[in-house]
Amino acid sequence: MVYVKDFKWTRGMTVEELVTGLDSVGFQSVELAKASETIIKMKESGAKIFFTFTSNMVTSGLRGFFAQVIRLKMADVVVTTVGGIEEDIMKSFGEKFPIGEFTADDVELHEKGTNRIGNLYVTNKSYERFEDIIHDMLKKVYDKKKRWTVSELLMEIGSMLNDENSILYQASKNNVPIFCPAITDGAFGFHLYMFQQKYPDFILDVVKDFANILFSTSQDEMKGMISLGGGVSKHHAILACLINGGLDYAVYMTTSRESSGSMGSATTREAKSWGKIKDNSDVATVIGDVTITFPLAMIKALEELSKKGLVKND
Amino acid sequence: MVYVKDFKWTRGMTVEELVTGLDSVGFQSVELAKASETIIKMKESGAKIFFTFTSNMVTSGLRGFFAQVIRLKMADVVVTTVGGIEEDIMKSFGEKFPIGEFTADDVELHEKGTNRIGNLYVTNKSYERFEDIIHDMLKKVYDKKKRWTVSELLMEIGSMLNDENSILYQASKNNVPIFCPAITDGAFGFHLYMFQQKYPDFILDVVKDFANILFSTSQDEMKGMISLGGGVSKHHAILACLINGGLDYAVYMTTSRESSGSMGSATTREAKSWGKIKDNSDVATVIGDVTITFPLAMIKALEELSKKGLVKND
Amino acid sequence: MVYVKDFKWTRGMTVEELVTGLDSVGFQSVELAKASETIIKMKESGAKIFFTFTSNMVTSGLRGFFAQVIRLKMADVVVTTVGGIEEDIMKSFGEKFPIGEFTADDVELHEKGTNRIGNLYVTNKSYERFEDIIHDMLKKVYDKKKRWTVSELLMEIGSMLNDENSILYQASKNNVPIFCPAITDGAFGFHLYMFQQKYPDFILDVVKDFANILFSTSQDEMKGMISLGGGVSKHHAILACLINGGLDYAVYMTTSRESSGSMGSATTREAKSWGKIKDNSDVATVIGDVTITFPLAMIKALEELSKKGLVKND
Amino acid sequence: MVYVKDFKWTRGMTVEELVTGLDSVGFQSVELAKASETIIKMKESGAKIFFTFTSNMVTSGLRGFFAQVIRLKMADVVVTTVGGIEEDIMKSFGEKFPIGEFTADDVELHEKGTNRIGNLYVTNKSYERFEDIIHDMLKKVYDKKKRWTVSELLMEIGSMLNDENSILYQASKNNVPIFCPAITDGAFGFHLYMFQQKYPDFILDVVKDFANILFSTSQDEMKGMISLGGGVSKHHAILACLINGGLDYAVYMTTSRESSGSMGSATTREAKSWGKIKDNSDVATVIGDVTITFPLAMIKALEELSKKGLVKND
Repeated sequence: MVYVKDFKWTRGMTVEELVTGLDSVGFQSVELAKASETIIKMKESGAKIFFTFTSNMVTSGLRGFFAQVIRLKMADVVVTTVGGIEEDIMKSFGEKFPIGEFTADDVELHEKGTNRIGNLYVTNKSYERFEDIIHDMLKKVYDKKKRWTVSELLMEIGSMLNDENSILYQASKNNVPIFCPAITDGAFGFHLYMFQQKYPDFILDVVKDFANILFSTSQDEMKGMISLGGGVSKHHAILACLINGGLDYAVYMTTSRESSGSMGSATTREAKSWGKIKDNSDVATVIGDVTITFPLAMIKALEELSKKGLVKND
Repeated sequence: MVYVKDFKWTRGMTVEELVTGLDSVGFQSVELAKASETIIKMKESGAKIFFTFTSNMVTSGLRGFFAQVIRLKMADVVVTTVGGIEEDIMKSFGEKFPIGEFTADDVELHEKGTNRIGNLYVTNKSYERFEDIIHDMLKKVYDKKKRWTVSELLMEIGSMLNDENSILYQASKNNVPIFCPAITDGAFGFHLYMFQQKYPDFILDVVKDFANILFSTSQDEMKGMISLGGGVSKHHAILACLINGGLDYAVYMTTSRESSGSMGSATTREAKSWGKIKDNSDVATVIGDVTITFPLAMIKALEELSKKGLVKND
Repeated sequence: MVYVKDFKWTRGMTVEELVTGLDSVGFQSVELAKASETIIKMKESGAKIFFTFTSNMVTSGLRGFFAQVIRLKMADVVVTTVGGIEEDIMKSFGEKFPIGEFTADDVELHEKGTNRIGNLYVTNKSYERFEDIIHDMLKKVYDKKKRWTVSELLMEIGSMLNDENSILYQASKNNVPIFCPAITDGAFGFHLYMFQQKYPDFILDVVKDFANILFSTSQDEMKGMISLGGGVSKHHAILACLINGGLDYAVYMTTSRESSGSMGSATTREAKSWGKIKDNSDVATVIGDVTITFPLAMIKALEELSKKGLVKND
Repeated sequence: MVYVKDFKWTRGMTVEELVTGLDSVGFQSVELAKASETIIKMKESGAKIFFTFTSNMVTSGLRGFFAQVIRLKMADVVVTTVGGIEEDIMKSFGEKFPIGEFTADDVELHEKGTNRIGNLYVTNKSYERFEDIIHDMLKKVYDKKKRWTVSELLMEIGSMLNDENSILYQASKNNVPIFCPAITDGAFGFHLYMFQQKYPDFILDVVKDFANILFSTSQDEMKGMISLGGGVSKHHAILACLINGGLDYAVYMTTSRESSGSMGSATTREAKSWGKIKDNSDVATVIGDVTITFPLAMIKALEELSKKGLVKND
């Protein structure tokens, strides 16, 4: 039996010490520490790690951390939504995203050409510049061949970037495929459509990309998942792992609660009924904002894995 | 100034009377009554109505209500995720979905071949029978032509069904397109992939379908949205309306709260910063489980519209 | 095994028909229908019914419904917080509470002497008039005797009111005690203090009131609870029932989720570990805003109980 | 304008560095960093600091941290609920609280005499031993005088403890009053009642304690608040500050969201409409589990204040 321990601050406390202390505090802090342990086991076991997140997280400064996580080989397969792809590219070209207020006057923001995502902003100008950038990239891609799967396309785009903090750049450099099952659901979709108008033989094959994620792993391989938020990113990775026999390790971090049967709120426990997660697997579900919970859990894991020589020091 | 009124029950109270009473109760009941009013205005104005929902809602008994809503011409364009498509087809072929418990023993369920979605279950057998059904349908579709957009494909499948309570059947019969931006993110995706293995010239063109949703409305047309839950369904419909000048009416119903910048939690207020919703539009955001809030708001609207001769009596 | 049924609207649908239909829809609608059934069983069994709610609900128009619920003998013991006591009295003297906006400009409201509670407002004027009212009442009470328990005091105040829609009035008239474990936590507390300054021998005995709630029921009696929201109201009623052997029936309605161990989010399941609820009791936990969920569940119960002659027609 | 910055891990990262980095990440991380800054300003300004928390947090290992926070003079007035008082005393006498599971079998736990609070447990044995302890303490208190306010009583009890990690011990030693507006709402209430049966002239004066919290500060003094969770603890401290002219600094940390007008979910923005918080004050509202968010925000503040010589090194 493990017991609650009184938590105490000591001067100069590291994140590693904090998360170790949280382990015996209670409520979500216990789940957080367990998430960290699960990530460590995942890596130590040599499992293939599926890493999923949603667009709004790429709007935030987690973007650089995600790129670092990929560079440090803590993710083998990435699944995300198209808004994040767009914003990662924008940032690689120097676009700046202002920090604002949840309670800003939205009509006023609109008049200024500023779009709000929670307490972060994206300007219309950033979208306008993206238009030119993406058109040039698609042209280069098209000149190579006419039919692409989404993951191939994103790997190619990543290779055209030059930003250490870019998710696509690091994924491309480290040969980590990025899957995006709803590639047209964003400005990118509009630009793809405009491009296809001009070059009608340009084909984006989404069905074949299903095979790609399916064969990105196998029944025999150990499989782990770190899933931030819900939606198609989370579901798509789970699906690929389910068909391959289910996950051995799973960490879900989300703000959603299980009361409606939505994907965002689906717990690691529910996943067991599907065989998405094996009955005896290591799992943790952490309720909370990932801009806080993910750095804590991942940094603790990186510190320990770094000591064991399983990730590079940064 | 409108004031709080003491709510009272009277024997035999109708849903219409209840929602009218809730209008001056407070908190979410006020938002609910406003949602109902907004739906009424949407219909009266002749706006094109975009209706979005997530898969879990089709797992639930809302499925029959959604089909009825389409039949009564309260939706002109539908956007959803692929799980809902699968389950609508399964139910059309007589599959039954058990009602269970949120707190069921998931390992035990798994051993019985039962998969849990909140407090609802889907059996493996239902998925197995779906496999045969969908393969036959795809073969018939393929025999007509080789290249399909997703919305064309779903319209065609709907025409093969024969179930008054089916969303796809009613959509097809009433010429309401269904868009599904992440069509491969489910068992359907796996079957599409298997089919393409056998018939490699079968192409699903997602990029062209972006044009279809874009041209499903126009700048000049009044536009309304009823969005249940979040995710790509909600985002995709908003995107199509944004490019067409923004929404005149919007009702968002969700369990998510604005604290993280996620799509599910994005409010009608935030949408104004993007021009997704026009500054002077009628809007309502209702926080709560849509299995309760949507029937209330929609029934009140149907009763009033029925009196005005704007929907058929059912 | 119970299965999901397609829900359908029929013209003129009653609340009773709606809730009956929701029973086989899924997610929270199933819990809602179960809550309604549990209330019916509670009443049919002759259980003593503990009814708890928080102040903000009395700010809302639920206040008149709560008074009706007490008048119809659906509550035998009430536990609430002091803000609700204050506002019930204010409303009995004709104060009006404006309906506003969650997103109002709070600094501007403050300048106008308007206080916000979600999307409802209370003016400073209402509080000022309450000051005179309560002082007169306390004087009358004091003239009768010097030492009071809180529930005696509230019973006496209720007898001075004359408003059919008042909770205190109906409680007093129907001999239903109201317990308020934190009686000083509001404007009322300030006025009690001012009064005690003037009349130092005025004593409010909270310890003795613990005995009163304890002996309001017994081990032998069947016990039920309808708890709206969390906090001390919920906890205090549970505690009294726990010491008396635990609840036979319990309905919890709340917006809180079990992730932190808070009282608001404590489920009927957790209550079983404490013996707060007997192992084989009928229970339901409904997640959602009570301004919507409570009228639905209670109206369905009232309709059925009315048919059975167990409540008066209203 | 402040912009989003890519967050990066560096080996051996301290909590201070992490929170500094989170400042430009987005969503709740930004609010968290702001909360930390507000705590620093609060202390630097010499404001009187009101610190409120709920019982479940004392069940957790935050208890030792709260005691440390009091010892380091970061709290001048404490407001909490009675369950926390009980558990602080239990822990001072060596009781251990097991860490369990949110999804434990509650009927089985009940049979073992184990009570669940989220994922933490309290055994019946702990409550039984508390009974003897508290009776002896009350006897000693009573022998001094017959009439006590709650805060006097808790100050006296604290002086009888001998545990550096105890909230009551540190509060007593550092002359920090603890207010508990619903003192009877727990096992403590039952024991007070039993004691009063034996010693009927024992009086607990709650009305006079309202004066004590009221005069714990003044109009002229700067006032700050750190409020964890909601309920009467939060409300009572706000009320005392409101009557004294409103707060200059406020940090609210909670899992509740503003959709129902409940106290737990009331934001610092809403507080401005009441004058609870001055219009130009520094405020932050952080949504999330306080077992994670509070240590982060407070440690960052302690580190900085320690460098400035405003708190002792620990």
